[in-house]
Amino acid sequence: MKSFKIQVRVQFKDGILDPQAEAIQSALKKLQFKSVQNVRCDKAFLISLEAESETAAQDLGRKMANQLLANVVMENFEVEVVT
Amino acid sequence: MKSFKIQVRVQFKDGILDPQAEAIQSALKKLQFKSVQNVRCDKAFLISLEAESETAAQDLGRKMANQLLANVVMENFEVEVVT
Repeated sequence: MKSFKIQVRVQFKDGILDPQAEAIQSALKKLQFKSVQNVRCDKAFLISLEAESETAAQDLGRKMANQLLANVVMENFEVEVVT
Repeated sequence: MKSFKIQVRVQFKDGILDPQAEAIQSALKKLQFKSVQNVRCDKAFLISLEAESETAAQDLGRKMANQLLANVVMENFEVEVVT
C-alpha cells in the first residue's frame, strides 16, 4: 500500500441555479468590482489515503464522490491524483 | 479590456479546525473507506471578468479575496488566471 493524495472537485451541473454564486456576484458588484461577468463556486476535497496504485486511488475517489461527496443529481465531479 | 477567467482558491490555515472536513472523514470511515487518513475541504471560486492584462486580472482576484471571498484571519488564498 502506498500513500496518495487525491482531489475530488465538485461543481454544479450546467443549468442548476447556484444561489451562493449569485450572492457573491452581486456582493462583488456592490464592492465596485464592476467587470465581473460570472461567478462559479466549486468544492475541492483533498483526501490523503492508502491504495495499491494510482488507479486504485482514483477509483476510491470516484466511489467516495458517488456515495458521499457529490450529489450526482445536481453536481458533476472530477477525481485526480495530486501526489 | 480582455476577458479572463480567474480561480480564487481558499483553504483553512494550518492549525485551524475544520468541522466539515472532520465530519466527512468520519462519514467516509463509516462507509468503509478505511484507508482515508486526512480530508481537507477547499473552496474554489471561478470568476469571469474583464481586465487590461493578466496581471490586472490577478490583482483584482487578490482584492476580491481580501475583501470578500476569504476570511484572511483563518484562511489562505491563491489566485491564478485559468484562461
